[in-house]
Amino acid sequence: MKIGIVGLGLIGGSLGLDFRRLGHEVWGVARRSATSEAAIACHAVDQASTELNSLRGVDIVFLCTPIHVIEAIALDLVPHLSPETVLTDVGSVKGAIVAALSPHWPNFVGGHPMAGKSEVGIAVAEPHLFAHRAYVITPTDHTPAPAVALLTELAKGLQAHVFTCSPAVHDRAVAWISHLPVMVSGSLIQACLQEPDATVRQLAQQFASSGFRDTSRVGGGHPELGLMMAQYNRAEVLRSLQGYQQALQQLTHRIETEDWAAIADLLAANHAARPDFIRSAPAPDTTAS
Amino acid sequence: MKIGIVGLGLIGGSLGLDFRRLGHEVWGVARRSATSEAAIACHAVDQASTELNSLRGVDIVFLCTPIHVIEAIALDLVPHLSPETVLTDVGSVKGAIVAALSPHWPNFVGGHPMAGKSEVGIAVAEPHLFAHRAYVITPTDHTPAPAVALLTELAKGLQAHVFTCSPAVHDRAVAWISHLPVMVSGSLIQACLQEPDATVRQLAQQFASSGFRDTSRVGGGHPELGLMMAQYNRAEVLRSLQGYQQALQQLTHRIETEDWAAIADLLAANHAARPDFIRSAPAPDTTAS
Repeated sequence: MKIGIVGLGLIGGSLGLDFRRLGHEVWGVARRSATSEAAIACHAVDQASTELNSLRGVDIVFLCTPIHVIEAIALDLVPHLSPETVLTDVGSVKGAIVAALSPHWPNFVGGHPMAGKSEVGIAVAEPHLFAHRAYVITPTDHTPAPAVALLTELAKGLQAHVFTCSPAVHDRAVAWISHLPVMVSGSLIQACLQEPDATVRQLAQQFASSGFRDTSRVGGGHPELGLMMAQYNRAEVLRSLQGYQQALQQLTHRIETEDWAAIADLLAANHAARPDFIRSAPAPDTTAS
Repeated sequence: MKIGIVGLGLIGGSLGLDFRRLGHEVWGVARRSATSEAAIACHAVDQASTELNSLRGVDIVFLCTPIHVIEAIALDLVPHLSPETVLTDVGSVKGAIVAALSPHWPNFVGGHPMAGKSEVGIAVAEPHLFAHRAYVITPTDHTPAPAVALLTELAKGLQAHVFTCSPAVHDRAVAWISHLPVMVSGSLIQACLQEPDATVRQLAQQFASSGFRDTSRVGGGHPELGLMMAQYNRAEVLRSLQGYQQALQQLTHRIETEDWAAIADLLAANHAARPDFIRSAPAPDTTAS
């Protein structure tokens, strides 16, 4: 199969490495020629260009650019595609992207391979990045079944765990486990910074250990990532924040009223529930989804 | 020096291993004779007993029991001590303990070695547990200077970083970086559990990856630990929760009003500030402070 990849960073480059390994022909497009040359040099693509019209004739195109430029690039790209070409993306929000792109290309199907690393760029692309990780496919009622089938087949070839759900359900689920943690974790750092007593603030920094480090990790990550979540999944992030504030207020109220039995129950429920969320979690610091 | 240790678990046992290595004589007391025998067998103590009166004649006693029994044990212990014996503890809250014990023993000085592991008990005691970690000493205006000097000298012998501050300042600082993270992290799990749509809830569990795992770790830990923090550091935990809720509401308001520039600034400030808290952090999962 001929596969086009637009955006040759960590995700685009890693897809290219795997698809070539699986025997597909991979054509890449990067914004800068240095990137397309690097992608050829590391065997992530068979050929690469900075021109979208070079993808004329591919069977499927993966849009692997930052979210804020996906729509503009898709608009530039589609005049060069034949109608049977499937278009997909790898963005970590789906509602906004699917709504933006579907009108421009009926054969579009949204996707979200939930893999990543803290580093970005073609230099850190690696084979097997998507193996044993979730790959969410988000068709609508109007998405052609063959497009879904093709993307499913390719994702399974990557040894990913394929999930299919609506863009809305995807965005609601990732708000809970990916976007809300960034807001919760960032607000922990922010709250500590707002301690008015400088001595307490400095001792807090000195005393902080693994508990603070882990709880603050995603909140202290790349600011652009958190901003993207808030902007492109705004309604669901706000909904999850509302649910979170209720849970926090419930706990606070129980501490205020010294309802120790209820707090013990709450903490025990959290302890019991956490394994359901981390059963399949990979090694630390390997995901940015 | 003759050192008594009451409570031969992870902390008491590890103190014993280090103090014996440094040439001190260590006498241990455990609630159960099996524990005192295990402490002798693993060379954590020179001699051990289940009787507090066996500590007659030591120069300093470390109370290493769970917080809720410290006062009762101290009351049973002090009739056997000579007035010059220094009494200290290793509890992770200081205000409540210092207030409870000081009236019973003028030569008491509170301490908090900020080291731990996720496992507990004499079987996981290890040498050098306190090296390069904070050891907070919390005298009051009435604490005898020689008691503070003796504990400081012993803590420095463990290669710990010794900090001295009031019990109130200690409790305020650890609320921010140790107790608040447990409440914030636990409420994340709790909020996810309260998602009413079962499909979304199940997909959230399937999609959860390293971000959720790290942010939820301390909140999904031993329930007794979180309960102890809420009970014994209640006022400071509530104060930190109030500050946290303000930070979270500030972020939420900015997402509601789509004040993207302010959100970008906030996330950038968190990103910039985090290294001040994790500069000296040890390897993952080695602390329970």
